[in-house]
Amino acid sequence: MAAPLAADTDIGIDRAGLTEFLLRMGDNALVLGHRVSEWCGHSPVLEEDIALANTALDLIGQTQLWLGLAGEVEGRGRTADNLAYLRDAHEFRNILLVELPNGDFGRTLMRQFLFDAWHLPMLQWLSRSSRDPRIAEIAAKAVKEVAYHVERSADLVIRLGDGSEESHARMQTALDELWPYTGEMFAADATDEAATAAGIAPSLASLRAPWEAMVDEVLAEATLKRPGGAYAHKGGRSGRHTEHLGYILAEMQFLQRAYPGSTW
Amino acid sequence: MAAPLAADTDIGIDRAGLTEFLLRMGDNALVLGHRVSEWCGHSPVLEEDIALANTALDLIGQTQLWLGLAGEVEGRGRTADNLAYLRDAHEFRNILLVELPNGDFGRTLMRQFLFDAWHLPMLQWLSRSSRDPRIAEIAAKAVKEVAYHVERSADLVIRLGDGSEESHARMQTALDELWPYTGEMFAADATDEAATAAGIAPSLASLRAPWEAMVDEVLAEATLKRPGGAYAHKGGRSGRHTEHLGYILAEMQFLQRAYPGSTW
Repeated sequence: MAAPLAADTDIGIDRAGLTEFLLRMGDNALVLGHRVSEWCGHSPVLEEDIALANTALDLIGQTQLWLGLAGEVEGRGRTADNLAYLRDAHEFRNILLVELPNGDFGRTLMRQFLFDAWHLPMLQWLSRSSRDPRIAEIAAKAVKEVAYHVERSADLVIRLGDGSEESHARMQTALDELWPYTGEMFAADATDEAATAAGIAPSLASLRAPWEAMVDEVLAEATLKRPGGAYAHKGGRSGRHTEHLGYILAEMQFLQRAYPGSTW
Repeated sequence: MAAPLAADTDIGIDRAGLTEFLLRMGDNALVLGHRVSEWCGHSPVLEEDIALANTALDLIGQTQLWLGLAGEVEGRGRTADNLAYLRDAHEFRNILLVELPNGDFGRTLMRQFLFDAWHLPMLQWLSRSSRDPRIAEIAAKAVKEVAYHVERSADLVIRLGDGSEESHARMQTALDELWPYTGEMFAADATDEAATAAGIAPSLASLRAPWEAMVDEVLAEATLKRPGGAYAHKGGRSGRHTEHLGYILAEMQFLQRAYPGSTW
């Protein structure tokens, strides 16, 4: 299938590259949305149950838009649902951070914050770009939702970090464990470089400064210590995932695969 | 605790009676909301995942309001969260219909429709009542949400009932199995009679006509046969539940009971 996919789009990037970029955006939203939805009905407080479900809903809504456009650009007739429910793990393009297990409530919120703090400047850039109006439109919708996500996740990271001794310790542990998964958000490969060169996406490196500014401010207020070490787990964005993604997909895709094309 | 609860409210019904009425409204929303939320991340289509999560969110939001008021009226200092997470099964006041397992997607929608078609006229009556403005206010908010729920559940019952041979057969089976659980929605006991006499609630019997009108119309369009037989399973509204409620509560209450008062 390499030949038809290599055809140029009219915006200076080939179809395969643009599709890949869109899958990366959509899969981050899909996998994190699924993770957050695992809390549905399990939160310890009604208010949190509602807030987490709203976050999951926003992310699944964004998934529909990104994967819908990815299918369109790809030009093989795959819909957002096809892409969500019928791909195998190695075809997913999300970063590893979002597929990691929820752990406790605080760890879920720490992961959310570390992602939101990247997601927001990424979407802000995309929403202001005039290179592809379809991308700008999706980003403009998502940016409003994600501005709220990061406000809420930052607030909870601060409350739990600067909370009881127990909650502080748990948040520090969550931060230390999740930190090595944040580097993947800034590690550009050839696909990213092509998207940046075509004016489709910001350079990933340029997102580091706003991300670090927000993270440092929130961690300071939360009385949490920013971990040292520059080691970064990578691979998700090119399809090399942890074993966790397989379990997510098994659960998420079971019905669609057992009854193809059916709403049963 | 009988003595303090027997104190009159200023609206012609004793506190225990009014609390009971509010718990029944709140517990229906809570238990059905939890059941619907079990679909989170498991729907076969992204669109349905979003729609079901929205329904669950509406119901959990209504739960907060009904149980919040129930705790206030009861006057023992219990919050909505206390009532949701710290009661045992025999203290729950929901009808049996809403605690029945989801089954497949069509059965979930049939249960939703049979409940929505009762829920809507009940809330319409409450929203127009001037007897207790707090109740009217909650009902006015809920009625907008539930008007949408029933529109959607009716539409899906019709599409699946009047769909493929397979989907028709499944919907008829779901209807036949759920039907004996619908009678409880109209079976008034002393609590209902007191609430009706005080002008707080409609007589349950009066809700049957609008319910039957809607159900008959939708079933006809869905080419489904209305089951005969007047036998009605009852007990939920006075705390005698199926074994299913215990499993729901075990799942829903686990975190709160394991870590009392904690958000971990």
